Amino acid sequence: MDDSLSIDLNCDMGESFGRYALGADSQVLEWVTSANIACGLHAGDPLVMQQTVSLAARRGAAIGAHPGYPDLQGFGRRVMDLTAEEVEAFVLYQVGALAAFTRAAGAELVHVKPHGALYNQAARDAALAAAIARGVARFSRGLILVGLAGSRLPEAGLEAGLQVASEGFPDRAYNPDGSLRSRREAGAVLESVEAVCAQALRLVREGPGAGIRVETLCIHGDGPHAPEFARAVRQTLEAAGIRVLPLAG
Amino acid sequence: MDDSLSIDLNCDMGESFGRYALGADSQVLEWVTSANIACGLHAGDPLVMQQTVSLAARRGAAIGAHPGYPDLQGFGRRVMDLTAEEVEAFVLYQVGALAAFTRAAGAELVHVKPHGALYNQAARDAALAAAIARGVARFSRGLILVGLAGSRLPEAGLEAGLQVASEGFPDRAYNPDGSLRSRREAGAVLESVEAVCAQALRLVREGPGAGIRVETLCIHGDGPHAPEFARAVRQTLEAAGIRVLPLAG
Amino acid sequence: MDDSLSIDLNCDMGESFGRYALGADSQVLEWVTSANIACGLHAGDPLVMQQTVSLAARRGAAIGAHPGYPDLQGFGRRVMDLTAEEVEAFVLYQVGALAAFTRAAGAELVHVKPHGALYNQAARDAALAAAIARGVARFSRGLILVGLAGSRLPEAGLEAGLQVASEGFPDRAYNPDGSLRSRREAGAVLESVEAVCAQALRLVREGPGAGIRVETLCIHGDGPHAPEFARAVRQTLEAAGIRVLPLAG
Amino acid sequence: MDDSLSIDLNCDMGESFGRYALGADSQVLEWVTSANIACGLHAGDPLVMQQTVSLAARRGAAIGAHPGYPDLQGFGRRVMDLTAEEVEAFVLYQVGALAAFTRAAGAELVHVKPHGALYNQAARDAALAAAIARGVARFSRGLILVGLAGSRLPEAGLEAGLQVASEGFPDRAYNPDGSLRSRREAGAVLESVEAVCAQALRLVREGPGAGIRVETLCIHGDGPHAPEFARAVRQTLEAAGIRVLPLAG
Repeated sequence: MDDSLSIDLNCDMGESFGRYALGADSQVLEWVTSANIACGLHAGDPLVMQQTVSLAARRGAAIGAHPGYPDLQGFGRRVMDLTAEEVEAFVLYQVGALAAFTRAAGAELVHVKPHGALYNQAARDAALAAAIARGVARFSRGLILVGLAGSRLPEAGLEAGLQVASEGFPDRAYNPDGSLRSRREAGAVLESVEAVCAQALRLVREGPGAGIRVETLCIHGDGPHAPEFARAVRQTLEAAGIRVLPLAG
Repeated sequence: MDDSLSIDLNCDMGESFGRYALGADSQVLEWVTSANIACGLHAGDPLVMQQTVSLAARRGAAIGAHPGYPDLQGFGRRVMDLTAEEVEAFVLYQVGALAAFTRAAGAELVHVKPHGALYNQAARDAALAAAIARGVARFSRGLILVGLAGSRLPEAGLEAGLQVASEGFPDRAYNPDGSLRSRREAGAVLESVEAVCAQALRLVREGPGAGIRVETLCIHGDGPHAPEFARAVRQTLEAAGIRVLPLAG
Repeated sequence: MDDSLSIDLNCDMGESFGRYALGADSQVLEWVTSANIACGLHAGDPLVMQQTVSLAARRGAAIGAHPGYPDLQGFGRRVMDLTAEEVEAFVLYQVGALAAFTRAAGAELVHVKPHGALYNQAARDAALAAAIARGVARFSRGLILVGLAGSRLPEAGLEAGLQVASEGFPDRAYNPDGSLRSRREAGAVLESVEAVCAQALRLVREGPGAGIRVETLCIHGDGPHAPEFARAVRQTLEAAGIRVLPLAG
Repeated sequence: MDDSLSIDLNCDMGESFGRYALGADSQVLEWVTSANIACGLHAGDPLVMQQTVSLAARRGAAIGAHPGYPDLQGFGRRVMDLTAEEVEAFVLYQVGALAAFTRAAGAELVHVKPHGALYNQAARDAALAAAIARGVARFSRGLILVGLAGSRLPEAGLEAGLQVASEGFPDRAYNPDGSLRSRREAGAVLESVEAVCAQALRLVREGPGAGIRVETLCIHGDGPHAPEFARAVRQTLEAAGIRVLPLAG
């Protein structure tokens, strides 16, 4: 047992839209410590944002903005070729919109984690990562930027004067250099709860490889077994003496 | 000459969208003292918002959010039947999004003026007006809510603990009770610059009727002669000794 | 047993959108004879439309367009104040878009049923109903316009030279004059499968009241029990000797 | 003089949207022979489509669909990473929607020309080009697919059993191999009316290079001088004995 270790568990949520319900936010919030809330461009709408902020605040989760590309039909998962200037402004817009709901709820906005294609592109593209970091920093230097561990995004956050949190994915396999194994390769996604929990432990204790550390683990919230996996990961970590705590700004 | 009188001149702006340019914001800003900036749902987009906030700040105009219905194709001018809860959340969303840009620009968000059908419905519908006022007040009690003079909207603002500013329209005819003459009636819209300037003077000195006062005059920014009318109204007012000043929170 | 009676069972479908799944289209298609497929403005997207047309064609359901207001966030259920000219063009647009998929699938477009607020407003508003009917008739006089039995919409269809089908709702209570009981009144929505089946029988045999006849019954497709209700209604009708058949153009 | 030569002049139009006006469609239609009409996803809306179809039909222009990516804010000019299946369905959707308006106007749909990023990507990407061609061919094998001369798009059209028309750009410089000079290079865009007219003549007489032929020239419709350039190109071509005629299916 190593009780000096701690980790944040985060989950994307507030991804319902109008008549369309998605995710099991309330159940997942029993297990995660940070909520990344969609901001209305790739998912979510003002009413969903308000309800999700309120729910997360009641459950004591740290609240973050989860900005994405303006592509509701593609759920923000399709690469879009925005200019750096556009990305910066779109991030700032979405952070501001979500911050209005945390402010109205008497809650605090703690972090920002980009969504989907924006997140993935920013992991590799330093200019895009810098644009995101500028959008966040122009709102507040007190925000924590969450990005893929070992990628361009945390780097860009540090350069912009932000605190950053490096993220790992317990349901994904990693390459020896600490990068995510491509989804095109066999075994890229871990299917069993046992494998996911083992990967969670490894990511917290050793990191994904090459000396990279992770400060937060992503729990996917939209599969049918999301609450079950969230609980298993949390219980596994706690049983191993790892404290599960939100990110601290 | 009555130098005890003062008035704000406001104009809707930032209503371009992507490839679509609208308005003569830069020219109009030479003459008006308050800028109501669209927030991306009926018009505007994050880049346009950023540029318009920056422009208004450089020119010294007071900056306000100009939230509207989520109806880009209808430019927010079509009545939509949102619930009060939806209106409140949509207003809060848009105010927050715009406030991100004022904050990033080191500028201040001074006021909120609803747009189009939302404005017009709120003039008559106390429940809708109250929903708007709640959306604004939940962001900040320090904001000024701008609404049609003598209508439900300023009333609702006061009840919500906000400061309010009553608005008059120099290019519109009024009924004896101080209400706007319906656009369906002849003569509802004043066409000549002389008539508009005379109406501006009357609105500042006497109000629209029935003892109603106005604190801000709306200059429409999207017609071909907008800058010319803005200049004429401002010069007429100043020539009559009326000070043209932004709203003070 | 009265085997001279026949009825169509229709269901709205294809209302998923991108990442958002809605409805149990495949299961409901085991029981209904007509599929009203959303056209991308209030719900649905091109891929969903293509898949739903293909599914309905394989199952032998008659295919109809289900146009709605351009309001994805409100799912087409919010009243919007479009002009008659706009409504006509929006209906024509959506009918054409769906017809592209029936054409590509080698299937036939049989009917058009407006959705949500558009449907409800058209039941009462003759000018709006006429605009819808013109939009449909300009595409093809061979299409059947489906509207609330006894309302303005079938009337407008007949005046536009279309065939029409009058629709009844087995899960709704009716007033003695054959109009739907308002949802604001108690008992407006029938909850039990027995009550729904009894109402289906009554609507086919007697109509909703005041001598009004119905030619198609709407099976709601988006509740958790939709397939079960669809099956129960169909089996009840067939057990009573009523033939369940698609509308014939 | 070589009166055996003929060429089509095409122009993108119908790119206004709601309150936002764009282009000088009516003036340009005095000079061009084919109208590529936006279909509501990157630009245009049902009312604009209806009006533009009606205008083009009255002027005797051949009417084509101008489908684009679903990205109004980016005007369809931003690369988006849609799957081939999505592209095919989105093209089919848009062609069907526009065809509804030609059908209602008693006009004929003659051609399809993809817009913006979709057009540019399809010039290089055979799989994307094939997806577009399938979308068009599934609507009708009688349609002409317009694509960049010498690129993947006309090739894909031929493979899909469509007629194709190869397009040249009189306001662009070409490389010796017949490809467009990149906009990143100096001199890529021809600015003067004389240079544009000379390039138009060269493209008709010799093609852009490497033995490539062009059957239609694109006149850009959204600049301030669009009608003037359209007239100059047409008059130059006719003065040289080249007949200006719409594409024939």
